[in-house]
Amino acid sequence: MLLLKHRAFRLLTWAAAGMSLWWSFSGAIPMQQAPPDLRVDGDRLLERLDRLARFGGTPEGGVNRVAFGDEDIRSRVYLKQLMEEAGLEVRIDPAGNMIGRREGRDHSLPALACGSHTDTVPHGGKYDGALGVMAAIEAAQVLEDNRIRTRHPLEVIIFTDEEGGLVGSRAMAGEVSDEALEIVSHSGKTIRDGILALGGDPENLEGARRNKGDIEVFLEIHVEQGGVLEQQGIDIGIVEGIVGINWWDVTIEGAANHAGTTPMNMRRDAMLAAAHFVIAVNTIVRSEQGGQVGTVGRIRAEPGAPNVIPGRVVLSLELRDLSADKIRMMFGRIRDESRRIAERTRTEISFSAIDATAVPAPTHPLIRDLLESSAGDLGLTSLRMPSGAGHDAQEMAELAPIGMIFVPSVGGISHSPKEHTRARDLINGANVLLRTLLKIDRVRLGV
Amino acid sequence: MLLLKHRAFRLLTWAAAGMSLWWSFSGAIPMQQAPPDLRVDGDRLLERLDRLARFGGTPEGGVNRVAFGDEDIRSRVYLKQLMEEAGLEVRIDPAGNMIGRREGRDHSLPALACGSHTDTVPHGGKYDGALGVMAAIEAAQVLEDNRIRTRHPLEVIIFTDEEGGLVGSRAMAGEVSDEALEIVSHSGKTIRDGILALGGDPENLEGARRNKGDIEVFLEIHVEQGGVLEQQGIDIGIVEGIVGINWWDVTIEGAANHAGTTPMNMRRDAMLAAAHFVIAVNTIVRSEQGGQVGTVGRIRAEPGAPNVIPGRVVLSLELRDLSADKIRMMFGRIRDESRRIAERTRTEISFSAIDATAVPAPTHPLIRDLLESSAGDLGLTSLRMPSGAGHDAQEMAELAPIGMIFVPSVGGISHSPKEHTRARDLINGANVLLRTLLKIDRVRLGV
Repeated sequence: MLLLKHRAFRLLTWAAAGMSLWWSFSGAIPMQQAPPDLRVDGDRLLERLDRLARFGGTPEGGVNRVAFGDEDIRSRVYLKQLMEEAGLEVRIDPAGNMIGRREGRDHSLPALACGSHTDTVPHGGKYDGALGVMAAIEAAQVLEDNRIRTRHPLEVIIFTDEEGGLVGSRAMAGEVSDEALEIVSHSGKTIRDGILALGGDPENLEGARRNKGDIEVFLEIHVEQGGVLEQQGIDIGIVEGIVGINWWDVTIEGAANHAGTTPMNMRRDAMLAAAHFVIAVNTIVRSEQGGQVGTVGRIRAEPGAPNVIPGRVVLSLELRDLSADKIRMMFGRIRDESRRIAERTRTEISFSAIDATAVPAPTHPLIRDLLESSAGDLGLTSLRMPSGAGHDAQEMAELAPIGMIFVPSVGGISHSPKEHTRARDLINGANVLLRTLLKIDRVRLGV
Repeated sequence: MLLLKHRAFRLLTWAAAGMSLWWSFSGAIPMQQAPPDLRVDGDRLLERLDRLARFGGTPEGGVNRVAFGDEDIRSRVYLKQLMEEAGLEVRIDPAGNMIGRREGRDHSLPALACGSHTDTVPHGGKYDGALGVMAAIEAAQVLEDNRIRTRHPLEVIIFTDEEGGLVGSRAMAGEVSDEALEIVSHSGKTIRDGILALGGDPENLEGARRNKGDIEVFLEIHVEQGGVLEQQGIDIGIVEGIVGINWWDVTIEGAANHAGTTPMNMRRDAMLAAAHFVIAVNTIVRSEQGGQVGTVGRIRAEPGAPNVIPGRVVLSLELRDLSADKIRMMFGRIRDESRRIAERTRTEISFSAIDATAVPAPTHPLIRDLLESSAGDLGLTSLRMPSGAGHDAQEMAELAPIGMIFVPSVGGISHSPKEHTRARDLINGANVLLRTLLKIDRVRLGV
C-alpha cells in the first residue's frame, strides 16, 4: 500500500513537472527547472560501465587499463562519444584531461564540475574511477534527455593518470613539474609521451591550469575502497575530507653479530627494536579517537641471514588523517616512544621524511549537508567518513569547494580484480550525485 | 716469595724430568716424558700466524682465503712444509683434509687428534680456524724440538672447507652426500672440483671416513667469535659443547589492504603479528636459565609498499642450545604463543622446519676437567661456556670424545676483517692445548 501511495505521489509530481516542462518549453529551449524526483537511468549506467570495463577487461573479471596504454587511449574514443551524446562539448586540455562542457543559463556563473578517472592500476577493478566518470556522464545525459539546462555550466572531467599520482588533476592545480613528466608510467611511456598520446600538449602544461573562480564546485563519486559502509550496512558515504599523508623512512641501527655466539643480553638487535616500533605505531595510532591510520608496510633487515642478528632495519612509516595537526601530534608521540625503545634495545632510531606528503583536503561543509539531504531524499542511509585514499578531488580542492560521495565496496577490496560494488549501490550513488548537482545549481556556496 | 717457591718447585720438577729424560734417552730415540712446564714458542706461533694471514691478506687487515680458492691452495704448500718440520708425516685424504701424523710409542693406541681449518669466509679475519691449525702444529713442533714422543700417535688435521658447511669433518664422519659435492663454493668451484684441486679424491669420499676407535680424542682451539670472555676478563673458555641449531621459516598470513581506507580495527596486519612474534621469541628465550639463544634474522613483508598493509610476512626463526630437549621446549612455547598472537591479530602463523639442523655435540666431561686444570696450572682463569657457532669438532664428536678451547675475541667480532685476538691470548690458548694433549696422553678416557 505504501508503495502504491508512493508511486501515485511520483506520478503526481511527474505530472506537475510535465506541466512545468510544458510551460517553460518553447521550441528548442530546454526547461529551466528539474523535476524533484529526476533519476539516472540505472540500466544505462550499468550497461555503459560494463562496456567501459571491456577496454582492458581481464579473464578474472578485473580491468587492466593503465594510463596511456592502448586500452586507455581506445576507451577515450568511446567516452568522447558518450559525452557528445550527453550534449557535452569535448576538449582535451594540455594535460590530456578530457573535459566535456555543457553551457548553463547564466553565463556569469562558474562551472559545476564532476568526474574522476578511467585509468586503473595494473590488474585493477571495474569501478575505481570509472564510476565517477560514468555517473557524471549519466547525470549530463539525464539532463539532456529531459532537456534541462542548469543555471551553471556543467563540466564532466576525465582526469589523466590518476593512479600514477593524480597527474591530470595536479596539472589543473598547476602542480606537475618538468621532472614529473619524465617518470615512466605503467604503460611503459613517460608521462610526457603519455600525455601526447592522449592528445595533450605536455610542453604547454600551464595551459591546463584552472583559475580559482572558474569552477563553482567539484563533485566526485567513487567506490569506498574500504569496508566500512558495507560492514555497517550504510548506502552512501559522505566524505568529510581526503586525508593528509605523511611518510617516513625509519632506520634502526643496532649491531650485526653472530646469532650463535652473542648471548641474548649482549645483543643490539635492530629486529627486536623494529618489532617494538611496529607495535608502538599501532598502539599510539589506536589510542586516539578518530579515523586516523598508521601503517608499517615495508621492512628490510640487514644483513638478512637467519644466523646473523640484524644490525640494521629500515622500515616505512605512513600516517594519514584529516588533520595535519593530528598527524604531527601522532608522529611526535611515535618519535618519543622510539627514543625509549632505542634506549631499551641499545639501538639508534632515526626518521627521514619522504617527499610524498599530501596535505589534508577537507570537503565543503555545505556540500556535505546537501549530499546528506540528497541521500535522505532518496531514502538512503548515509555516514560521514574520511577518505583514506587519495582522489582527484583533493587536487581540485586547491581550486574550488569539493564534495565526495562513496558507495560501498564489497569486502572492502580495492586495486584488485575482485573489487566490486553492487548494482543498486552504483545507481544510488549516481542518483545522489545528480540530485546534489541540481541542488547546488540553485544555491551559491559562500566561498 | 710464593713465586720464588713456585719457581724453585718448577726447577726441581724440571730436574726430575731431566733425570727421567736421561734415563730414557738412548741415541736418536726421543725422550718419553714431557717436562711439566713445557711451553709453546709464542713468537714462532705469532710469526707463523702472520705469515699464513698473508695468503689472502686484505688491505683492511683481514683475510680473504675462501676454501678451494687460489690462496687456500697456495697456503697449503706452506702448511705442509710446517707440518713436515714438526715431524709430521703428511697426507691428503680423499676429502682434501690435510693430515699430519706423528707416531707414538704405543702402536696399539688410537691417535690424539687436534686441528681446525684454514679457509675463511669471504673477507674474514686472521685467526678464525687458523689459530686451531697453527696451535696444533706448534704443539707438534714443541714436541719435536724437545724430542718428546707421546704414547699415542699425534694427528694434526686441517679440515677442508669448514666455512662452507664443515665439509672436511663431515666427510670424516661419512656425512657428505653426492648432492653436496655439486654445491658451488665461494671460490666459484663446486665442492667436488675444489676437493680435486686440494689433491683429494671426491669420487672416493668414503675413503676419508674414519672409524670409531681410530681417534682417542679430538681437541680444537678456536677464537670465541663472541664477546663473553673479553667482557668478563677471562683468559680461557672451556667449551661445554657445540650447540644444536634448529631453523624454521615462519609464515604469517593476514590480508593485504589499502593503508588509507582500511580502519585500524578492520586490519589483519601480518606485520603487526610479526612484531608480536619477534618479541615473543626474545621474551621466551630469555625467560629460561642458560645460554640458549633465539634469533629472527630475516624478514620479508608482502607486498612491501609503504601504503599497503602487509598481507604476508615470512621470517626466519633460529634456536640454539646445548640441549635438543631445551630447543624442543622453547619451540613449543613459541608455537603456543604464536597461536595466541594469530588469534589476537586475526592472522595465521605456520612453521616450516628447514633442513639445516645441527644436533648438539657435548664435549667430554673429563676433557673439560683436564682443560680447566691445564689453564689453572698456567695461572689462567677459565670459564665453562657453550659454543654457539658450529665447528669441525662437532662432526668429530661422531667419532671420538672432543674437547674445545676458546680464547677471547676483541669486541666479540667475528667473520670480519676486524676480528682480533690479543697475542697473549693466542699463546695462552696454544699452551693450554699443548698441556692438555700431554695430560690426555697419560690417561685413557673411559669411552
